[in-house]
Amino acid sequence: MVFSPDRRSLLGGLAAAAGGWIGTAGAAEGRLQVPVWTRQQGSPVASPAYGVPSRFEDGIKRRPRTPPPIPTAASSGTPLQHLHGIITPAGLHYERHHAGVPDIDPDQHRLVVHGLVERPLAFTMDDLLRFPSVSRIHFMECSGNTSTWGGGNPKWTVQDTHGLISCSEWTGVPLATVLQEVGVKPEGRWILAEGADAAAMTRSVPIEIALDDAILAYAQNGERLRPEQGYPLRLFLPGLEGNLSVKWLRRLKVGDKPFQSREETSKYTDLMPDGTARQFTFTMEAKSVITQPSSGHQLRERGLYEIRGLAWSGRGSISKVEVSTDGGQTWREAELQQPVLSKCLTRFRLPWQWDGGPALLQSRATDSTGYLQPTKEQLIRARGLNSNYHFNAVYGWQLNAEGAVTHVV
Amino acid sequence: MVFSPDRRSLLGGLAAAAGGWIGTAGAAEGRLQVPVWTRQQGSPVASPAYGVPSRFEDGIKRRPRTPPPIPTAASSGTPLQHLHGIITPAGLHYERHHAGVPDIDPDQHRLVVHGLVERPLAFTMDDLLRFPSVSRIHFMECSGNTSTWGGGNPKWTVQDTHGLISCSEWTGVPLATVLQEVGVKPEGRWILAEGADAAAMTRSVPIEIALDDAILAYAQNGERLRPEQGYPLRLFLPGLEGNLSVKWLRRLKVGDKPFQSREETSKYTDLMPDGTARQFTFTMEAKSVITQPSSGHQLRERGLYEIRGLAWSGRGSISKVEVSTDGGQTWREAELQQPVLSKCLTRFRLPWQWDGGPALLQSRATDSTGYLQPTKEQLIRARGLNSNYHFNAVYGWQLNAEGAVTHVV
Repeated sequence: MVFSPDRRSLLGGLAAAAGGWIGTAGAAEGRLQVPVWTRQQGSPVASPAYGVPSRFEDGIKRRPRTPPPIPTAASSGTPLQHLHGIITPAGLHYERHHAGVPDIDPDQHRLVVHGLVERPLAFTMDDLLRFPSVSRIHFMECSGNTSTWGGGNPKWTVQDTHGLISCSEWTGVPLATVLQEVGVKPEGRWILAEGADAAAMTRSVPIEIALDDAILAYAQNGERLRPEQGYPLRLFLPGLEGNLSVKWLRRLKVGDKPFQSREETSKYTDLMPDGTARQFTFTMEAKSVITQPSSGHQLRERGLYEIRGLAWSGRGSISKVEVSTDGGQTWREAELQQPVLSKCLTRFRLPWQWDGGPALLQSRATDSTGYLQPTKEQLIRARGLNSNYHFNAVYGWQLNAEGAVTHVV
Repeated sequence: MVFSPDRRSLLGGLAAAAGGWIGTAGAAEGRLQVPVWTRQQGSPVASPAYGVPSRFEDGIKRRPRTPPPIPTAASSGTPLQHLHGIITPAGLHYERHHAGVPDIDPDQHRLVVHGLVERPLAFTMDDLLRFPSVSRIHFMECSGNTSTWGGGNPKWTVQDTHGLISCSEWTGVPLATVLQEVGVKPEGRWILAEGADAAAMTRSVPIEIALDDAILAYAQNGERLRPEQGYPLRLFLPGLEGNLSVKWLRRLKVGDKPFQSREETSKYTDLMPDGTARQFTFTMEAKSVITQPSSGHQLRERGLYEIRGLAWSGRGSISKVEVSTDGGQTWREAELQQPVLSKCLTRFRLPWQWDGGPALLQSRATDSTGYLQPTKEQLIRARGLNSNYHFNAVYGWQLNAEGAVTHVV
């Protein structure tokens, strides 16, 4: 544990901060009155047979940042400000759909693999479930996450600004195994992935990525994929922009060049200051954000707090996270939750004594390649202000003297 | 990947097995007709705002093995035969309650710590959430899991026989931190943990365990605990019998000896052949079970399958899992899903060619202490047949020539 002050300082900090919750013996034992829920039998087992959160957690939900004009072509964010550890419950995994969530019968679903292959094949879900499988814990991030290149709103929470990232244990067949099965011809260099949703979402993936760590995923956090995550089958490309991990996957076509679909020409490209566009910018660069305290939180007293946040990199693992509470003048290294996994969320934590003054809370991540998360100024200098994608700059939350935390505009 | 036969053998095995799913080019592309769900817009984002599984997965649920006579004092098992990887979705985590699930208002809930301490204290949930936190992925197993010392029913599934184990990422305050805060007196050697359910479930925990890796857990798989798992607060003791990890935790009392509560005298003891009872048998020993194929599964064709299962040990990590398909005459080492974590489920996998004959499928685990999971004969020789707890023997599933898998009675 990084946090190990002598007993008195922790006690003192909390005692001062919490304004009297440290009781006396009498006060403590006075709290042992039998509460109403100990006086009656509770609910039976398996009611419900598939469990749900407590009714007191009813406010913890996915939500779009603003009511979307077309709710089937929209996104909803994960409530990072309320979450702990690195796993995102499937019910709170962020969403980004282009024509809504289809209601697919898995027995009717097929994956067709064709194009420049020796043996075009159609796979049932039962076929895919028989193949050798892998499970790995990885983040998934929409490349449009944190599209706040300029401005914003002081009320935006981390769910609004960074909610298009989540993390799950994904299980499925290595794509390489299925490609071995169909036999990719030597001239096969790119693969088109197509979804069975009404948008027929299509993206091109280089063969090197497909043969590396790509997964045909059918399960998430132990159970079959949720409908919003591509049930019954999705492509999963660790560390790359979420849009590439095509949901409701029905087709893989092997070709000799990229297919130039709408989603890789008009969308998911980055317009640069010189008028050219960066295309096929797959990898999600190192990034981090403080989730507690963050915008919308209210500190009630001075004293000891634990600053908590998340860091990740599509290029490997996180090697270091630093936290500043003075707007970047000084930085302290946070503790990283173990094990630190590749292309996975990493939880960081740092104890902090709030003295009651204003504070600007920021974090910056370094990944295993040595890459340091840039400042917003550095990022804009390199990429301009025309792009909506791949914003990974250092982010801050403003704490005022009353303990209110807001988004920095 | 352990599984890397030459292309022809994998193809041949699957082609022979799957009875014609390997199409021709025409057949494969014939499957590209546009399905009904691609012809219409799907559901909007955040509908529901807290997601649920597909309606096609409706049968995957927790359930009691038999309808319990007292449904508030009963258990329900995790459907291991349908799960993947190591994480158990919170909605499918096994249950064991002694007076049902209380409906606790977290703002009213208090944890009182008293007895042989310098400063008896009552903590609110907000207090506990401010303390330095940890998150770790650990299994939890009821010591009554697999209480099939003799007999059984051929229809029992792995949910029936082994379903009282699940695995989550648990987050909370190290118990050691809170004990440091109250100041345990030198004569304090045991701690009584009491739940706020109507059973007021109480167990005694040695101070050495409390100061080691025990957690006051408030979150599970990223979100706050589910009601069935002790919302808003439970004790979590990694690797030890689940009953010790008292749910709905309202009180910790430090004493100089064990408190000899009902749950550690009449229950949760192991009656030995000589008439004495083993008491305070906390640790869950190394154990493993094959989950796919397992009882209730039906293999449709000969050919290649992946045998999958779970292994775990309360004494550390799993170092090896071996699988036998011939009733224990020969054993092959399975691949372990990485990373292998301490006191955590470990998924194992082994490719296997089914030739169409009967087979007895078994697994045995070795843990990081060198301990090998015993045979049922070895276990009964050591412990007799009077106990309901701590059964960890090698388990088998019988596959017949028609591909049906049943529980071995």
